[in-house]
Amino acid sequence: MTRRIYAIIGDPIGQARSPDIFNARFRERGIDAEMIPLEVAPEKFVALLDGLQSVRNFGGALITVPHKIAAAELAHEKSERVRIAGAANALKPTASGWSADLFDGEGFVTGLATQGFTIANRKAAIVGAGGAGLAIAAALLAGGIASVALHDQDARKTESAVARLGRNYPERVISRLPGSADDLAINATPVGMHAGDPLPFDLGVLSPRALVADVIMKPAVTRLLEEASRRGHPVCEGRHMLDGQIEALWTFLSMGA
Amino acid sequence: MTRRIYAIIGDPIGQARSPDIFNARFRERGIDAEMIPLEVAPEKFVALLDGLQSVRNFGGALITVPHKIAAAELAHEKSERVRIAGAANALKPTASGWSADLFDGEGFVTGLATQGFTIANRKAAIVGAGGAGLAIAAALLAGGIASVALHDQDARKTESAVARLGRNYPERVISRLPGSADDLAINATPVGMHAGDPLPFDLGVLSPRALVADVIMKPAVTRLLEEASRRGHPVCEGRHMLDGQIEALWTFLSMGA
Repeated sequence: MTRRIYAIIGDPIGQARSPDIFNARFRERGIDAEMIPLEVAPEKFVALLDGLQSVRNFGGALITVPHKIAAAELAHEKSERVRIAGAANALKPTASGWSADLFDGEGFVTGLATQGFTIANRKAAIVGAGGAGLAIAAALLAGGIASVALHDQDARKTESAVARLGRNYPERVISRLPGSADDLAINATPVGMHAGDPLPFDLGVLSPRALVADVIMKPAVTRLLEEASRRGHPVCEGRHMLDGQIEALWTFLSMGA
Repeated sequence: MTRRIYAIIGDPIGQARSPDIFNARFRERGIDAEMIPLEVAPEKFVALLDGLQSVRNFGGALITVPHKIAAAELAHEKSERVRIAGAANALKPTASGWSADLFDGEGFVTGLATQGFTIANRKAAIVGAGGAGLAIAAALLAGGIASVALHDQDARKTESAVARLGRNYPERVISRLPGSADDLAINATPVGMHAGDPLPFDLGVLSPRALVADVIMKPAVTRLLEEASRRGHPVCEGRHMLDGQIEALWTFLSMGA
C-alpha cells in the first residue's frame, strides 16, 4: 500500500493547524497517511487541482482562504451546503472530477455550542462575505437563528451573498454592519492575521452581552477578541470552528478507511 | 515559515524508500520539511508538475520509473548529465520552470565502490535503456569504464541510447546482450519487481567472476540477484544506487537550507 496523501491548500498556509491535528490522528490510529500544507496563489489553484486529480494516492484536500469559492466552482459534485453558500472547504477526488462539501458553518455552530452559546432566536452579524462568512451564515440560518446581517467591504460581494442566502431563507438575511441589536458579531475576514491590522468592525456599537467570534486561527486570540474581552464581551476563538468539524472532515475524506 | 514539501513521483511508488530516508533526516536535523510519495500515470505527469510548479512551499521532486525521460524533456535547465542521458531523476522549481539533474549514475558508481568494485578498464552490459539504464551508462563511461553494451527489448530505445551516448563516448558504446566478456551485468529494467517476473537476462552466459547488479529496490534481493548469488557471482543491490546519491540529492534540492 502506498501512503495516502491529503493536503490543506491556501494562501497563506503557514497558519494552518490541520496538518498537526490530522497527522497526530493518523499516527495514533496506525494509518499510513500524511496531510501536507500547500501554498498556492488564486490564479494557480485550478492548475494545482488538475495536477492532484491525477495522483492515485491523493485522498483529498481541505481548502482555506482564499480558495473556498473557487473550490465550489470547480467541483462536479456539490453538497446542498456548498450549493447554498457557493463555497467549499473540502474536496475529494471522484472518477470524473471533485466532490465538494463545506463544514465551516457546522464547525462554527458546534464550536459556539461547546462555548455555551445557543443560536435559536438570536440575531447575528457577520463581517466578510467570502467562503467562511457564507458558510457560517448558511449554518446559522439552517440552525434556526432569527436573522443574519452581512457586510463585506466589497459591496458586490455583500449583495450577492444576501441574494444567494435569501433565496433559501427569505426575510432572514439583511445587509448591514454589526450593531446594538446583535447577540453575536463575527469576523469572517482575514483582517487580524497580521500584526498592525485594524479591527474588522467597531466594537463600540455592540450590546455589552454580545458574543464576539473570530474565524482566524493564528493568532489564536486576535486583537478583535482581545479588545472584546477587555470590554467584557464573551468571545469565541477561530480554533473552535476547526475543532467542531474534525470528525465531519475525517468521515468525508474517508481518512479512517 | 511554512513546511517545505518534497515529493517522489513514480508509477508505481509504493516501493520507494526515499520518503523514509529523507523524512528521518529532516527530523534528525530539525528541518520542517516532508517528502511524500505521489503515484501518477505517464499521461498525467506533465499536468502534475504544472500544478506543483505553482506551490510556493514545494521544494522539488525525485523522479522515478517511468517518468525519468519525461522529466528531462519538461525541464528548462538541464545539467550536462541530463543532456547526455536524456533522463532526469530530480527536478527543482525555478522562477521560469524546472531545473533537472540526474544522480542515478553517480549513485550507482558510488554504490559499486562501496561494494569494492572499481570500473576502470572493465566491461559492462546494461539491460534496459530507459532513464536508469542511460544514467548508469553515462556515469560508467564518464568514470572510465572501457565499454558499455546496451540492450532494451524495444530495439528503437536501444538504438537511440547507443547513438546518444556514442556522441559523447565514440567507440565505447555498443548494442548487445550481456555476455562472457562482461565484468559487470546490470538490470536497469523493472523486471523483477513482481513475484513471478522472468529473469531480465540469462545468467548462464556470464563469466563466473562477473558482478551482477540490479536497480530494483523492492524486493531488496531480486530473483536475479538471488540466482546470481547461488551461481557464485558477487552482487550489488538496488539500494546502493540510492544510498550513493542521498548527499547529492540533498544538496541539489537545498534540503538543508
